[in-house]
Amino acid sequence: MTTHSQLLNVTGANLIAGRESRESSDRFTAFDPRTGDPGELAFPEATPAEVAQAADAAAEALDVLRAWPAARIAGLLRAIAAHLEDVGDALIHLADSETALGPERLAGERARTCAQLRAFASVVEDGWHHEAIIDHRDPQATPPRPDLRRMQTPIGPVAVFGASNFPLAFSVPGGDTASALAAGCPGVAKGHPSHPGTSELCARVILAAAEDVAAPSGVFSLVHGRGHEVGQSLVLAPQIRAVGFTGSYRAGRALFDLGAGRQDPIPVYAEMGSVNPVIVTRRALAARGEQIAEGFVASMTAGAGQFCTKPGIVFAPEGDEGLEFVGHVARLLRSAELGPMLNEAIWQGLGEQLAATAGIPGVETVVWGARGAQGFRIAPSLFKADAKAFVDHPQLRAEHFGPSALVVTVPDGALSDTISQLDGGLTATVHAEDDEADLADLRRLLEAKAGRLVWNGFPTGAAVTFAQHHGGPYPATTAPAHTSVGATAIRRFQRPIAYQDFPDSRLPAELRESNPLNIPRLVDGRWVDRQPPGTRKTESP
Amino acid sequence: MTTHSQLLNVTGANLIAGRESRESSDRFTAFDPRTGDPGELAFPEATPAEVAQAADAAAEALDVLRAWPAARIAGLLRAIAAHLEDVGDALIHLADSETALGPERLAGERARTCAQLRAFASVVEDGWHHEAIIDHRDPQATPPRPDLRRMQTPIGPVAVFGASNFPLAFSVPGGDTASALAAGCPGVAKGHPSHPGTSELCARVILAAAEDVAAPSGVFSLVHGRGHEVGQSLVLAPQIRAVGFTGSYRAGRALFDLGAGRQDPIPVYAEMGSVNPVIVTRRALAARGEQIAEGFVASMTAGAGQFCTKPGIVFAPEGDEGLEFVGHVARLLRSAELGPMLNEAIWQGLGEQLAATAGIPGVETVVWGARGAQGFRIAPSLFKADAKAFVDHPQLRAEHFGPSALVVTVPDGALSDTISQLDGGLTATVHAEDDEADLADLRRLLEAKAGRLVWNGFPTGAAVTFAQHHGGPYPATTAPAHTSVGATAIRRFQRPIAYQDFPDSRLPAELRESNPLNIPRLVDGRWVDRQPPGTRKTESP
Repeated sequence: MTTHSQLLNVTGANLIAGRESRESSDRFTAFDPRTGDPGELAFPEATPAEVAQAADAAAEALDVLRAWPAARIAGLLRAIAAHLEDVGDALIHLADSETALGPERLAGERARTCAQLRAFASVVEDGWHHEAIIDHRDPQATPPRPDLRRMQTPIGPVAVFGASNFPLAFSVPGGDTASALAAGCPGVAKGHPSHPGTSELCARVILAAAEDVAAPSGVFSLVHGRGHEVGQSLVLAPQIRAVGFTGSYRAGRALFDLGAGRQDPIPVYAEMGSVNPVIVTRRALAARGEQIAEGFVASMTAGAGQFCTKPGIVFAPEGDEGLEFVGHVARLLRSAELGPMLNEAIWQGLGEQLAATAGIPGVETVVWGARGAQGFRIAPSLFKADAKAFVDHPQLRAEHFGPSALVVTVPDGALSDTISQLDGGLTATVHAEDDEADLADLRRLLEAKAGRLVWNGFPTGAAVTFAQHHGGPYPATTAPAHTSVGATAIRRFQRPIAYQDFPDSRLPAELRESNPLNIPRLVDGRWVDRQPPGTRKTESP
Repeated sequence: MTTHSQLLNVTGANLIAGRESRESSDRFTAFDPRTGDPGELAFPEATPAEVAQAADAAAEALDVLRAWPAARIAGLLRAIAAHLEDVGDALIHLADSETALGPERLAGERARTCAQLRAFASVVEDGWHHEAIIDHRDPQATPPRPDLRRMQTPIGPVAVFGASNFPLAFSVPGGDTASALAAGCPGVAKGHPSHPGTSELCARVILAAAEDVAAPSGVFSLVHGRGHEVGQSLVLAPQIRAVGFTGSYRAGRALFDLGAGRQDPIPVYAEMGSVNPVIVTRRALAARGEQIAEGFVASMTAGAGQFCTKPGIVFAPEGDEGLEFVGHVARLLRSAELGPMLNEAIWQGLGEQLAATAGIPGVETVVWGARGAQGFRIAPSLFKADAKAFVDHPQLRAEHFGPSALVVTVPDGALSDTISQLDGGLTATVHAEDDEADLADLRRLLEAKAGRLVWNGFPTGAAVTFAQHHGGPYPATTAPAHTSVGATAIRRFQRPIAYQDFPDSRLPAELRESNPLNIPRLVDGRWVDRQPPGTRKTESP
């Protein structure tokens, strides 16, 4: 028997169905973003055989999970959160050494990750995610209708690709894993190669939780990989039925194409980033331009600008208010102190993109993001262009992943034509006065461009609630009907099954007439909410 | 101004945004399945320019529909149903001449189609399809939560591909069109080339309904095409945001690949058929074998076996009961009178498949489906094989689209291993006695294989209700999380949008605090159903 502390000891290993595995001698390390130096521990590239073993074990675990009551799935999610807390500062230090995001941000990210796991546990306990529907037999209908009952069930083993910028909340123990487990699907995670130690520690946390609730060992596996091969093997593994991904457009699209090109295509839910436009009106700037600039800079520089919801383009009115806003932002950015970027490739890529942007005709470099002397450091950047330059140069619509933004000054009456050039995105934000004239046309235009509209706020920070939608039209995601944050994220990893004329005793408990699990159900077209404990009547707010 | 009767006069035309259009001189005709003779009227292949015009007009119509209240969308759906009835016997005669499905079946199919349109109108009036969710601001949460409200919105113009086997219910005025319009999405239909006249008449019915409710002319267009080019242009049209398809595996997969391979991928919801296995237990056969055989033959020969839910494989216990069942089915099939098949390609294809099946070692031809002397006629077929032959020969798992079935005799204890060989399908059926021992393992196995499980019934006939699920794992469909029948079919053509901290007056009416549209909503995690007219309290069943 291994002890708890042994189990949580990072050794540089793939974790396949609860076992350490290092078949390949091909190893890689993390790099400290503050110094650029390689880490001490080497991690083994997973082999195709190891990926296949993980997928096999996940398929076996699926059969076990199918028979589990919801409370046990919820228990697993809660146990992961508890172990993630119990592992203490060790996790924060390790993640900080691999990402340089800083202990405060990482502690906050862990709190968010644990809250997310517990929120999904509550959803599973409530049974809301089954979307149970009952239509009783109707012999009067033409033709007569049978008894039909339908619920969401797990789609099968899910591959999870960790993101560089959220080593916890969008990586191994993050939203995709929580969604998959909540749906009853085992997971196989590919750790992000920028933070392999964090990935391994988090996978060990999940395995410790799995042991607590006596889950099958295949319920979660971790494979390491620096190149494309491991991820490709994983997406092509026959047992894998869906993929969750957060990361770059290039990698996301490549995985989507692989999933769609399989002999049996599978959905690849790739969240690939966004420019997150912010529209500020003249009146809003007149009333509180400095305050908006402060909020904008805080949102744009959070995590060194490496948020998929980082606001990257501001559309401001031409004239004094717009120029003053640019001045406020520039002043704040010049004194901003940022941590280094997550890895060398991101740092290099941003540097090249900044140089290219500065060279576009009509673009003024207001603040230049010089590279730092050590590690992957870079200062914030601010560019300015007028609406014509923005329309003429499609490169200006591209996301800068990092602390860089563009202010587009727009003549009166030209806003719609200008922002209609935008690609699909995750969010769009409006800063306006509450009593400004009708902005319904602007709202409709932004609805066509984004998944979440923010009023007088900033898009960074995506609350984990039922109503959240963290998604949007391509190229923000490959599946605009789905979200990777919030309770409905579970739906990505489910498929419905309908039961026609089944005897009550042979139905899954979720669909039996007496509602023994006390879950919300749509019965003959009307919602019947769950009964609060100890009552018999439906609660109405 | 055209009169109503002129409007409903089939002339052999594409209908682009309310106009007749015949740009190409390339024409084709329908064929009478009873004689094999070509029809009199020629239909023009749509050109790429015509397809582009239809898609453009649909995109313009989308902006208009976005501003429509639900009642007006519902009015359009109801008007289509009314015109479909008003057009009377002309539609039945025309459809019968092109499909040979017979007036009775076609009248029934029209009734189903109209009921489906009206059911979706009710759903739209209730507002259920918006899946409205409200999470109020929570300043106590860590971090504090904003006010978040989310609803489903139209995904954009939808391409609809009509099916050969349901010229009404799964074609121009069928479930895909009804779902798209219910979601608020304009549609562009590609008519099935086997029934171009029916397609045109139905499109004219939809345009007449659109005129009734003053819908924009681009709300619905019809393009004709015999080859692949028209469908390909349609799926690749930039304005098209989703595709609904019912038809063959080959065509469905080709369209799915096209949609996934676009620069901006779009979902292609292709429903491609299924073998629809039926498992009969020894006790069920002993108790009512003849009755099961009668039900099976009726289901298997409905529409000359050309249903996507036709039961194609029966797993029966080895021994006397199974043999007796085969005898009953054979006797009934020998005296069955079937209409001809839908078109020459289907008829030829089935003939080749029957010959190949008869030649597989271990397969016994119990009833041979000889071709008829005139038109696309063929007699029903029945094959028998033991479990070993079924496992050894993957060809036996393929769908026969037509009146042909296979009975697999299975030794005791070998059922799971045998049916685990099945591909994903739309349905799976069990005939067993209500007091038979636990069949939970069988249920779980079938859940992994199908979208709808039927108890002591037959899979043909898919009721249009909330709980229906007409879908299933690949290769039955390209999107196992979705259904093409029932209220949740609308979800295929929607994407959610979330609103963060919006002032109440700037929210869509569906999400305003006072619920002015009286729709069901999930508020802070609890379902609040719509208020019945004239009441103020939430109704609880």
